[in-house]
This record gives sequence, structure tokens and C-alpha cells, in this order.
Amino acid sequence: MDDLEALIQRISRLPGLGPRSAQRIALHLLKRKERDLVPLHLALTRVINTVHACPECGAFTTKRERCALCQDDSRDKTHLCVIEDMADLWAIERARCFYGQYHILGGVLSALDGVGPEELRLDTLISRCKNGAVEEVILALSATLEGQTTIHYIKAQLAPLCVQVSVLARGMPVGGEVDYLDEGTIHTAFQARCALE
Amino acid sequence: MDDLEALIQRISRLPGLGPRSAQRIALHLLKRKERDLVPLHLALTRVINTVHACPECGAFTTKRERCALCQDDSRDKTHLCVIEDMADLWAIERARCFYGQYHILGGVLSALDGVGPEELRLDTLISRCKNGAVEEVILALSATLEGQTTIHYIKAQLAPLCVQVSVLARGMPVGGEVDYLDEGTIHTAFQARCALE
Repeated sequence: MDDLEALIQRISRLPGLGPRSAQRIALHLLKRKERDLVPLHLALTRVINTVHACPECGAFTTKRERCALCQDDSRDKTHLCVIEDMADLWAIERARCFYGQYHILGGVLSALDGVGPEELRLDTLISRCKNGAVEEVILALSATLEGQTTIHYIKAQLAPLCVQVSVLARGMPVGGEVDYLDEGTIHTAFQARCALE
Repeated sequence: MDDLEALIQRISRLPGLGPRSAQRIALHLLKRKERDLVPLHLALTRVINTVHACPECGAFTTKRERCALCQDDSRDKTHLCVIEDMADLWAIERARCFYGQYHILGGVLSALDGVGPEELRLDTLISRCKNGAVEEVILALSATLEGQTTIHYIKAQLAPLCVQVSVLARGMPVGGEVDYLDEGTIHTAFQARCALE
């Protein structure tokens, strides 16, 4: 196979891209070799060589050992937020409502995708909860069947330990309109309705 | 800036991608370092080292000199199809309706984008037309103002030479419905209407 075809095939395997957009991107890169192709190649070289998962929380980092968040002493060590991946960490950090530490699971349990407990970073989660400071574990996982299964599994695993386990609230998203909500959300929002003071 | 942020910024500059999709792609790559990130990096390395523009038609090729199409003696040397870029070549080849040779201009004249005649591969087009075999030049350029301007410019440049110059037909696209056509296409389709035999 031609090197250009090989590149297009590689690009088309990226999430959200298909053969046509991959072709467009490859031609864009070739037309701007010095301005875009070579810098992208360099950025990938750097990431391959420097980025690794933090041994503590699992976040991607270029620090030699633990990541900046884990090393940050101003963050509350008593609250540990369990998330699926790095994108969730960025989303929560953008919301500026949590000042504790994170623990990246690397996914959720899924029989369909063949993700069992050994694929997730559960051992390190339990050892972090054992070693001390953690008082509350907030499970900020997807509101899906797989997320729910994972929540129950983790709850059982953490039961012997002296930590409180909580989950994010379910209900209408802020800005949501009732007629656009799916049935599951409407159901949950009714069930979890709050009395107006 | 962090190496990961630098990569995300690089990816978000690619056509059709924004910051969110770039973030998703970067995390996808990092999570599948050996399976996806390293092979993509290798594919880019190969393309940087091997792909260049064919000195004759301008198409990207990994051949040492002229590309496979230019070297293919079974292709009709009397018909030369002038196109904007490599994606047009692939589209026309997919349609299997043209068996001549191509000439990639590298764009169209555009005062807005600062593309003048010296930015396009016009000199090589003229010398190809002078050196012999070409009898008809088919200008398969965009049906836009810029494409039209470029067509008129090339027509004037080729006027002293003994070649026929043609353009692609304008009208309703196959499968098009009248109520979905834009006004320009309707106008053209009326003007270029054909008598039913």
C-alpha cells in the first residue's frame, strides 16, 4: 500500500473521522508540509516520549512522577473523585466546583466490550482509600447501565473501608427543557423531586 | 505549554476539527499508544520522507520521479484534465469516465485569499500543452466565481496554442430535486436547457 493511503487509513481510524475527512486532513497536511505536517509530527513525537499516566491518579502527565494535581498540596486530600477518563477530569476542572483529588478508572465495567474489573484501576483506588486521608469517594461515572453497574461494584469493594461513597445527582440538566428530555431523565427527575421550601 | 496541550492544539488546526474533537482524538491516541499513536506517528514519518509532488502533473506520489498516472502509457495523452487538487483527481478517478492525464493547479485564482497566477502551476500547464500531444484541455474547476475567473485566465493563456479548451457542463446534479437547487443552479440549468429529441 502507498504511504499516503496508509496515512489516510490511519487518520480515518480516529474517533469522529471517516475516509472522506481523513483524505481531506491528509491532503491539508501534505499541502502545508512545513507549516502543519512537520509540527504535528513533532508534537506526536514529544507526546510519545514524554506523556505517561500518573501512578497515583492515572491522569496523563508530562511530570516525571506524580502529576501536578496529585502534587498540589492546596487540594483537599479528603475528597476523591472517581472518573472514567481524562476528558472527565478536564470537564470537572472547567466547572470549578471540586477541589479534591481525582482517580481515573480508565473506563466502566462492560460485559459487551469485555471490560472486567481487572481492566480498571480499582486496586490503586482501594489502596488510596486505605492509605489514609480519604473520607469521601465521589463516583462521578456515566449515568448509563455500565456506569451504574460499576458504581455498585465499587460500592461493594469499598464497603469494608471507612469511607463515605457518594454519586452525582441525577435530574434535569441546567438549561434543559422538559419536552426535550428523554424518558429516563424525566423518570429520574420525578423520582428524585425535591420539596419547595 | 504542556506537550499534550500542544498536540491538542495541533490537531484542532486540522480541517473539520475543533478543540473538543481534537481533545477526544488526542486522548484516544494516548490510551492506545502502541495500537494507534505509534503507527500514526510512523505513517506521518513515512509521508514526510517519501511523498512529493509529481513534477509533471503535480499529484502527490511516492514514486521517485513522475507519478504512476503520468507513467501509465495506456492513458490517453491527448486529453489533459486541469483540476484544483488531489481530492478532485481521486473523485474523477472514482467516476471512471476520464482516461486521459491530469494537471493539478494547486487552487484557483482568488483575490480574497491572495492567490495570484504565480501561486498556481500555470507555467508547467503551458509547457505541457506546448510539448506536443495534448489536443484538448478540460478545465474541471469549481463552479464558483474564483473557478470561473481561473477558467477565463487559463483560456486566455492557452489561446495562442493549438489546443481545444473545454469546461465541465453546468446544470442539475444527477439525483437533484428542483426544490432543493440553489438559484444559481436553476438559472444555469434553464439557460443551458436542451431540446428533447
